[in-house]
Amino acid sequence: MTKWVYSFGDGKGEGKSGMKNLLGGKGANLAEMSNLGLPVPPGFSITTELCTHYYNNNQTYPTDLKGEVEAALAQVGKLANGNFGDPAKPLLVSVRSGARVSMPGMMDTVLNLGLNATTTEGLAKLTGDARFAYDSYRRFIQMYSNVVLGVEHSAFEEILDHQKAEKGVELDTDLDAEDLKRIAGLFKKQVEKELGKSFPEDVQEQLWGAIGAVFGSWQSNRANTYRRLHNIPEDWGTAVTVQAMVFGNRGDTSATGVAFTRDPATGEKLLYGEFLINAQGEDVVAGIRTPQPISKIVRERQGGKKLSMEEALPKTFAELKTIGDMLEKHYRDMQDVEFTVQEGKLFMLQTRGGKRTAEAALKAAVDMVGEGLIDRETAVNRVEPAALDQLLHPTLDPDAPKQLIASGLGASPGAATGEVVFTADEAEKLAADHHDVILVRAETSPEDIHGMHAARGILTARGGMTSHAAVVARGMGRPCVSGAGSVKIDIAKGEMSADGVIIKRGEIITIDGAAGKVFKGKVKMRQPELTGDFGTLMGWADEMRTLKVRTNADTPTDAATARKFGAEGIGLCRTEHMFFDADRIIAVREMILAETLEGRKAALAKLMPMQRGDFEGIFKAMEGYPVTVRLLDPPLHEFLPHSDSDIADVAKASGIDAAKLKARAAALHESNPMLGHRGCRLGVTYPEIYEMQARALLEAAANVVAAGGKPVQLEIMIPLVGFKTELDRLAVRIAAVADVIKKEKGKVPDYLIGTMIELPRAALRAAEIAETAQFFSFGTNDLTQTTLGLSRDDAGMFLGDYLEKGVIARDPFVTIDQDGVGELIAMATTRGRSTRANLKVGICGEHGGDPDSIRFCHDSGLDYVSCSPFRVPVARLAAAQAALSTRHKKA
Amino acid sequence: MTKWVYSFGDGKGEGKSGMKNLLGGKGANLAEMSNLGLPVPPGFSITTELCTHYYNNNQTYPTDLKGEVEAALAQVGKLANGNFGDPAKPLLVSVRSGARVSMPGMMDTVLNLGLNATTTEGLAKLTGDARFAYDSYRRFIQMYSNVVLGVEHSAFEEILDHQKAEKGVELDTDLDAEDLKRIAGLFKKQVEKELGKSFPEDVQEQLWGAIGAVFGSWQSNRANTYRRLHNIPEDWGTAVTVQAMVFGNRGDTSATGVAFTRDPATGEKLLYGEFLINAQGEDVVAGIRTPQPISKIVRERQGGKKLSMEEALPKTFAELKTIGDMLEKHYRDMQDVEFTVQEGKLFMLQTRGGKRTAEAALKAAVDMVGEGLIDRETAVNRVEPAALDQLLHPTLDPDAPKQLIASGLGASPGAATGEVVFTADEAEKLAADHHDVILVRAETSPEDIHGMHAARGILTARGGMTSHAAVVARGMGRPCVSGAGSVKIDIAKGEMSADGVIIKRGEIITIDGAAGKVFKGKVKMRQPELTGDFGTLMGWADEMRTLKVRTNADTPTDAATARKFGAEGIGLCRTEHMFFDADRIIAVREMILAETLEGRKAALAKLMPMQRGDFEGIFKAMEGYPVTVRLLDPPLHEFLPHSDSDIADVAKASGIDAAKLKARAAALHESNPMLGHRGCRLGVTYPEIYEMQARALLEAAANVVAAGGKPVQLEIMIPLVGFKTELDRLAVRIAAVADVIKKEKGKVPDYLIGTMIELPRAALRAAEIAETAQFFSFGTNDLTQTTLGLSRDDAGMFLGDYLEKGVIARDPFVTIDQDGVGELIAMATTRGRSTRANLKVGICGEHGGDPDSIRFCHDSGLDYVSCSPFRVPVARLAAAQAALSTRHKKA
Repeated sequence: MTKWVYSFGDGKGEGKSGMKNLLGGKGANLAEMSNLGLPVPPGFSITTELCTHYYNNNQTYPTDLKGEVEAALAQVGKLANGNFGDPAKPLLVSVRSGARVSMPGMMDTVLNLGLNATTTEGLAKLTGDARFAYDSYRRFIQMYSNVVLGVEHSAFEEILDHQKAEKGVELDTDLDAEDLKRIAGLFKKQVEKELGKSFPEDVQEQLWGAIGAVFGSWQSNRANTYRRLHNIPEDWGTAVTVQAMVFGNRGDTSATGVAFTRDPATGEKLLYGEFLINAQGEDVVAGIRTPQPISKIVRERQGGKKLSMEEALPKTFAELKTIGDMLEKHYRDMQDVEFTVQEGKLFMLQTRGGKRTAEAALKAAVDMVGEGLIDRETAVNRVEPAALDQLLHPTLDPDAPKQLIASGLGASPGAATGEVVFTADEAEKLAADHHDVILVRAETSPEDIHGMHAARGILTARGGMTSHAAVVARGMGRPCVSGAGSVKIDIAKGEMSADGVIIKRGEIITIDGAAGKVFKGKVKMRQPELTGDFGTLMGWADEMRTLKVRTNADTPTDAATARKFGAEGIGLCRTEHMFFDADRIIAVREMILAETLEGRKAALAKLMPMQRGDFEGIFKAMEGYPVTVRLLDPPLHEFLPHSDSDIADVAKASGIDAAKLKARAAALHESNPMLGHRGCRLGVTYPEIYEMQARALLEAAANVVAAGGKPVQLEIMIPLVGFKTELDRLAVRIAAVADVIKKEKGKVPDYLIGTMIELPRAALRAAEIAETAQFFSFGTNDLTQTTLGLSRDDAGMFLGDYLEKGVIARDPFVTIDQDGVGELIAMATTRGRSTRANLKVGICGEHGGDPDSIRFCHDSGLDYVSCSPFRVPVARLAAAQAALSTRHKKA
Repeated sequence: MTKWVYSFGDGKGEGKSGMKNLLGGKGANLAEMSNLGLPVPPGFSITTELCTHYYNNNQTYPTDLKGEVEAALAQVGKLANGNFGDPAKPLLVSVRSGARVSMPGMMDTVLNLGLNATTTEGLAKLTGDARFAYDSYRRFIQMYSNVVLGVEHSAFEEILDHQKAEKGVELDTDLDAEDLKRIAGLFKKQVEKELGKSFPEDVQEQLWGAIGAVFGSWQSNRANTYRRLHNIPEDWGTAVTVQAMVFGNRGDTSATGVAFTRDPATGEKLLYGEFLINAQGEDVVAGIRTPQPISKIVRERQGGKKLSMEEALPKTFAELKTIGDMLEKHYRDMQDVEFTVQEGKLFMLQTRGGKRTAEAALKAAVDMVGEGLIDRETAVNRVEPAALDQLLHPTLDPDAPKQLIASGLGASPGAATGEVVFTADEAEKLAADHHDVILVRAETSPEDIHGMHAARGILTARGGMTSHAAVVARGMGRPCVSGAGSVKIDIAKGEMSADGVIIKRGEIITIDGAAGKVFKGKVKMRQPELTGDFGTLMGWADEMRTLKVRTNADTPTDAATARKFGAEGIGLCRTEHMFFDADRIIAVREMILAETLEGRKAALAKLMPMQRGDFEGIFKAMEGYPVTVRLLDPPLHEFLPHSDSDIADVAKASGIDAAKLKARAAALHESNPMLGHRGCRLGVTYPEIYEMQARALLEAAANVVAAGGKPVQLEIMIPLVGFKTELDRLAVRIAAVADVIKKEKGKVPDYLIGTMIELPRAALRAAEIAETAQFFSFGTNDLTQTTLGLSRDDAGMFLGDYLEKGVIARDPFVTIDQDGVGELIAMATTRGRSTRANLKVGICGEHGGDPDSIRFCHDSGLDYVSCSPFRVPVARLAAAQAALSTRHKKA
């Protein structure tokens, strides 16, 4: 027979902290604290299995539940010296939900359950405190009606305000027992009026109503949404914890509060939290009275006048501190506790791991290693990799005054302030004159890249988290707010408007790319500090991980940034971005418009020295680490103007005939450019382009060494290979270029030839492709697009809907679709290594910076991940955690 | 040691017909005929392995080749009573290429090799016929210079014409020995002038020059193009056959000719071919004299005046007929032979399987079963499935009014109407724009092949039944009229004239490729009648095949056509095509523009009865066979106008606001519509669309049965599923619609729910998808696009280049890419059946009508293929051949 109910209290618990899955976090930790001998009011938990049973059986309970609950409740009464529903010795309980992890949207708490007209009167007699009894009663009616019966809070607030006004007082504490009794009556009438039935007097009805509300809340919209956002499976279920009440509202030696064992914002070791004298838990949250700090030093720092708990209740504070230390030692982690003081006696109502900022997580983890609380592996596992992002960018000072003018998506973290400009050229020009600019566009395209690079931050009116602006901005580490729909841009007028606020070109705005907010004017910032703790933890992570971390970088600046963040090479250097500079795009267009091989070669000859120069800069910055350079990838039409006015502009500027330009653009137009004439297909059609790039690469590598630099580990990557024959043809061409250089100069730098695996066919044919390819790099952006048949640019139209409806659990462009794309990655790795045992395998899609995807890459036996410079620390930490996970699985 | 040379002659051969791969078709069959005791001039073949060796070794020969050739040549001399290069008893030889299959573009033949100033004089003495000797010599110089040395024919023609003019004669035969000797001298001077070196006098130099030219021609552009078009691997190589000359130009008892053992156009059993008295082989082809029919009955039918061979050389004709019958019995197939008669004695120079039209193949195969020559399985294997196409297309209505403008030879059967074009490039360009064109040329050459492919039909002013145009057109199944001598073409003016009628480029003509007639304008056509032979063979095929054949049909008309062709169900009924009718598109657009669910439902309610009516018609036509209906698939923007003028038109016609229309079209615009918001993604976003379609289907099925029709085997297909959850959601919705109908009407028709597998992810996740899907249909068009990352609409820009360069061997949109897409198909089938053993699996992409792809589907264990109605017989036959191939593999 299944045991549905687990009791705790009186120094022992049937459960323990390891039983969170069954008892919920709250129930398990209350049992654990009981077992530790801490002062915990007695109670019991109904298991999460009951929740699952409830939903699997058409929302009914098993028949044996009632008996178990009655027995447990009787035991609680015995320990708490009361009987549930007994007017002589009324036992009051709290009812709370408890999932494995804390979850907004779940029913939180009903306090004082067990009160009705007769038990309240009994409580008044028993305590000799009628005011307390009726205050508890009206609180109970208010809370139960709201949480269980669904009556709006405001109805009760109005009644309370009205009564206070009638009596001419301001505070609840100015109401006496009679007032509160009358108010309880009015509350009940209000409930009857709203619901058409009376507030339950039967305490059993109250109890089962509350239990039902907890289980019901598991399927509330908010809970469902939260689960989806945080990848919490629906079948986990929630537990219910029923616990004897203790009262923080029994006078000035009573109190209630919450505390962290360390500062959750900074990680500093002190009791951090708030408390209220003579109050119940909900008062702290409700904000009717302002809670006070727990620790004296915090009060002093905040300049508070009222006494801290350390000062007001020094003995209890000391007791709480001892318990906090004990819990930290026991759980080996920073704790977040709830407590109540009833007439001087401290009771612990909850303990759990405390949520913390990245900064606090980092400091606490490193400190705890120093304190001997945890080992380095635990410390490395303690910090969430994604949270590191916060530490690497400037952030807005939370206390600074701000005028919000628009909201969008937090597309690329960090904050930036600058003058508004509306075109990439303007951005570049002003930036060259040392202005800080924010590039504001309806949406961005590859033509804007120079402007995005020049800008401090990017704001777009359209586009999602995976829009061009978002992807490129993240890659560059530029803060970006995308899809700020209320922003209207009028380039002709030279202004943008949002919510009635007009911002003219040159005026200052500030964007917060983490929160997706746009503010008028300059907002004060906090610079990131890569503290000693950061370095310490990352050092430990580097020792633990086996996966190498490279970066995606197209410029020497990016490469240098990434090196600073610990990148061990470049996994993806995109050569096409170099083509958009003003002096180059003309030659690129000449090349595209050339009608003969000779014409193309002449244009390419102009580009060659520029590319060679780019490569020299990048090679120098990478100091001998491997550099994977992808040859030209995008379709040629991306380099041509498309609208009539753009065509006219370009024709005028470059002296190319507009009609010819237009005809060529039209001829190159594609229905599905993602699946079109790009990647190695260009190389097959126009081998001279790849030959030029190969020459630029090899000469640059030679020049860097000649100038005293370290030998370049050059990896030439052919994109979009689907057929081995494509790679073969191009590898031969590149080898021929190398031969020519060798003849010319007597020697030629070493290089590897490899390919991106970004088409399902390439993954399937990996064995034969690896006969030629010396390395694979998974281009998971395109591999996801093709495997799922899903255009990243267009998926925004329905991907949100898919996530909302639960059709997919994760955005496949953020976290690798392990079941689909993942199988191809694993298959390609295995097959590739079947013909070339030492095949180097990495990943260079956006996924390379996503912790879950990094774990998958580690598990699939990849050699490295590559991500944007600012994600490098994230990847290093995630890789370490992945390695630890494997190590522990193996152990 | 490898044997490079195989001899034949004197009633025995070192090779035999089974050794085509080594000796080429020509060499193997000459050996076989020798072994059969037929009169074959002695000779030898150099193997295809030598060709491979030649190309693998930097175009050099193995050292032992020379000795083997010398020995074989000595043996030939012995049998032919001559010595190579010996002025006293000169041995002359022919040198020919011989690949496994006949291949235009290869060096064909050099005759009379071994002649020089001294051996010609010797030949004159030996034969006592100086004119014959010098005629042979000048022919040799002309042919060798052209074929081996690359000198243009026209240079020699001019000299010849000039000499005839000087002498005042018209025919070659009017030139005497002295004339010819002089001409030979002029020819040699011409060669020296053009090449800067003299024509080779050394017979060994001549021989090795010719051998080298054969091997060289294997890599000529024309040969490469032909191989690509016909999927002939490059590594097959060619053989060289060297054979003692016999002379058809030794007077009026000498002749040369070609013959088929049955009429290659109709299959009728008679000797069909052409011959010329006192001529060498090239005269038949060159068209200087018009060859005569072999059989008397053919001459009579053509209304010819000159004697047939049957009449002119009755004894030799009888001998040829006996040999033809013997060869047919021996090879169990219709033969195409070349022969020469030297002073009354018949020599066989070649035999091979005769190329034939589909009609002839069909009749010959069925007849041969009747004659006991072959069994039914052989008959079924004898007909190329793709060639059936020829039989299924319309012919001219004999009763329709016509304006005949020219007559020629009925070179390839079938009728075609189209715009006149004069160049292959023009044909290709217009065809790409969906114009029907007739390619009109003086004569065609291999450079015209792409235009012939693009054209509906071909008309040439010159050339016989065995001209390039005729042979190639028959191979392609294109109607062709050749040798329409009255047609004059003026490309500069862009017009043709015939009998005083001028037809300008772009005007319409109609050709009848069976009758050899050309008509002005469009002529009414008659639908093909599937003759008795067709029915007989298809009946045999149906008994042999295991794969079912369905059709892709969107209308009752298509469905009825397909049933007539033997379709056993509909594999793909696309519902969206029904949406484009004028009365429906308005409702469709209302639906798309609706801003509320109610608005969409109201528009869908208008469409429902129309769709129901469509389905009723289709179900009726299919008479109880299964019908797979795909729910709405294309992105919604396909139903909206896009250009400003179209938008204005639609707005005006439908009363919808133009600005709104434009805004909606812009909002729905996609960068890569192929990978966008379409297929089941629409169903997830707008379930009401699929619900409407499900209701229309179920009600239609019920109505058809209520009206006395057979129960409908309804298969509802959800397109573009990538995730099981998509299918699950939509299956539940459809089941709910069925439940409602059941409640309304008391019962609801049975149906299956299935999905298209057209995304790599779906193939990978087939096991779980089959938990819900009751059938799979491979949408190989999209599966190819996604697996290869290749847009079908855009691939045209470079796929031709890929084929040309040999990067890919086949167009993956025509024949399934077995290595890539094929692995996914096999994987999905296996995985799907792992969770649902009785999963129905079919294919409904374009590949369903391609014989090679059908074989793959058979081998992969699919249940059926589905193809366009006109391809159904092709698929039935291909499926039978696939089954036979498996059976024989197993046996």
